[in-house]
Amino acid sequence: MEIIRLGILGVGNQGTKYSKMVLGGECPDFVLAAICDHNPKRVEWAKENLSSDIAYFATAEEMFDSGLIDACIIAVPHYDHPKYAVACMEKGIHVLVEKPAGVYTKQVRWMNEEAKKHNVVFGMMFNQRTNTIYRKMRELVQSGKYGQIRRTNWLITNWYRPQAYYDSGDWRATWSGEGGGVLMNQCPHQLDLWQWICGMPVKVHAHMKYGQWHDIEVEDDVTAYVEYENGATGVFITTTGDGCGSNRFEIQMDKAKLIAEGDELTVLEFTVSEPEFTRTNTAPFGHIETKKIDPELDGENPQHGGVIRAWGGAILRGEPLVAGGEEGINGLTLANAMYLSDWLGKTVEMPIDEDVYYEELMKRVATSRRKEAREAVFADVSNTFAGTK
Amino acid sequence: MEIIRLGILGVGNQGTKYSKMVLGGECPDFVLAAICDHNPKRVEWAKENLSSDIAYFATAEEMFDSGLIDACIIAVPHYDHPKYAVACMEKGIHVLVEKPAGVYTKQVRWMNEEAKKHNVVFGMMFNQRTNTIYRKMRELVQSGKYGQIRRTNWLITNWYRPQAYYDSGDWRATWSGEGGGVLMNQCPHQLDLWQWICGMPVKVHAHMKYGQWHDIEVEDDVTAYVEYENGATGVFITTTGDGCGSNRFEIQMDKAKLIAEGDELTVLEFTVSEPEFTRTNTAPFGHIETKKIDPELDGENPQHGGVIRAWGGAILRGEPLVAGGEEGINGLTLANAMYLSDWLGKTVEMPIDEDVYYEELMKRVATSRRKEAREAVFADVSNTFAGTK
Repeated sequence: MEIIRLGILGVGNQGTKYSKMVLGGECPDFVLAAICDHNPKRVEWAKENLSSDIAYFATAEEMFDSGLIDACIIAVPHYDHPKYAVACMEKGIHVLVEKPAGVYTKQVRWMNEEAKKHNVVFGMMFNQRTNTIYRKMRELVQSGKYGQIRRTNWLITNWYRPQAYYDSGDWRATWSGEGGGVLMNQCPHQLDLWQWICGMPVKVHAHMKYGQWHDIEVEDDVTAYVEYENGATGVFITTTGDGCGSNRFEIQMDKAKLIAEGDELTVLEFTVSEPEFTRTNTAPFGHIETKKIDPELDGENPQHGGVIRAWGGAILRGEPLVAGGEEGINGLTLANAMYLSDWLGKTVEMPIDEDVYYEELMKRVATSRRKEAREAVFADVSNTFAGTK
Repeated sequence: MEIIRLGILGVGNQGTKYSKMVLGGECPDFVLAAICDHNPKRVEWAKENLSSDIAYFATAEEMFDSGLIDACIIAVPHYDHPKYAVACMEKGIHVLVEKPAGVYTKQVRWMNEEAKKHNVVFGMMFNQRTNTIYRKMRELVQSGKYGQIRRTNWLITNWYRPQAYYDSGDWRATWSGEGGGVLMNQCPHQLDLWQWICGMPVKVHAHMKYGQWHDIEVEDDVTAYVEYENGATGVFITTTGDGCGSNRFEIQMDKAKLIAEGDELTVLEFTVSEPEFTRTNTAPFGHIETKKIDPELDGENPQHGGVIRAWGGAILRGEPLVAGGEEGINGLTLANAMYLSDWLGKTVEMPIDEDVYYEELMKRVATSRRKEAREAVFADVSNTFAGTK
């Protein structure tokens, strides 16, 4: 294979963006070969506005069976990600999946098993990993030069959504349609980055508010506390209800403090690590000298294009992905743990009991206000899940 | 009375500072009349370095019985605050008490009853309330112009203390000597300001680490989640272990966001309140316009001097205090609720069960590593507490 024939499943906001990127030559390993959307209006729109030279399909099965595509980007609502991703894999089609990988971790485990079995390249659209600030934070944390993490704190409350957003689709913010609220729809990137940079915690205790700021049934306000294996602690706070939210991510380490806020990364390096200082210092009010250092960012931020190009490189030349499919499970595990903690009203330890989580989720799906769509979606989900057994 | 004859109990760091202020004419309603300290070396030092023209006493009782003082500042370790404050009150001596008012709320309730009974002016040294930034935050929040509080978030981790600090006194950071760690010694000001500005929550869930960063038996790392009556949430995070901590206090309201960080107060005012916007807006991704406004700070920050002067004004002319004694209970209630939540491993509702808190604290006092001092301190505490029955 010299050039990858790409199919795009779902030509909504994201599918349209990716189609334009490939058509515009931003991803030279790919040629756009086909688009599929179950909505005929979207297909008509795409024929007129994107390309009339490619194949169009009304069902995913037809596109996957067509023999016209080598790789597919899945950009449909997230309950359907696993089902379609696995259908691709079974045909030997490489897959790139929008976040979140699925709604519950069992699905993602299944996707990874299938990708391995069928030997396809399975990537995740974690485009925020390409951000120069988060790449640098990860590099600094993982390098070990600043010792261990002591505290992580992410106030990510700038996900404001008005009621009109939730009213724009009957599947939005429903247990049966999305499987959750701000954690499932808005925060998958930050949950992924949090664990990508700081590692996975061992305990989670979350407090959630359901429909606190909107007329919705799922959570729109979350405060989660975590503990890491080394005893460090962390907090993650998010909402879609704050009129003017914040995005401030602070990491306190043995020998530095990192703060990402807005477009800036501040690095305060200590002249001596805290464990060493406290062991050797004799002054009761002694304090540690710090200096602000230039983190030397490369300034590159290729986002979605970067993820797609890396995926192409992985398919054609075995180059590294931005985020392999197996990494889709970590951020989702954090979200699942937060739900389970709040539903059970207690601290949960990792790994969580995925069966209990699934049962608790399904209780909520069963009484979801999106009644008319429940059977169909739920049936799909159950079927695909059954495939993991 | 035209001028108040002041006694100072305890001439350590704080007592020395107050003595100098009064001697230096910073508090013109007062004349320094007496100093008491049980440590003869401190008394000698004060005679040489502060004043040789005033009375000195080795025991509080002698000073209170001397007839030489009309008012007294209590600046001794905090388990002893209630005992000495009430001893003053019984003699009709006005009292200003260092933070915290006591170690447990029952003590403070008792102090307030006694102050009322003996008709003395009982003030608290909440000098941070005089800070221009916090006064402005309170004014803006309490004015009602920004609607209701939705989220409060105080990351107050710049209380770094090295091990040498804890090693400098055998009573430090022990259950029997201080009744707690960072919440009892370092954070009383912030706990008071938090409730002074935002009001008291109705639920508290805290996670604490004991001796996480130091060789101590009490907490040096706290993450507390709270809920307010209107459903708003809040987080308070503190430690003495972070080599380079932060002090960032954010309040999200219906129509504004306030952030106090360092010496700056940022006020972002919305052009329309979020509840109104979400009700009337029709754009799914509509967002609220905000503008940064100048909070017009008066820049005054009289701190301890301001508290003492206001107390003098209250004694002589019935003027308002910076913080009346009855307000000493709120921040302490928050601290007590945090301990109780962590000890019981669950969310506690306000008002907490003070008897359960006291029992749990006394369990820890009984096994405190500060064994040699336990009986004496504990006996005092029990006796004074018995006085409330």
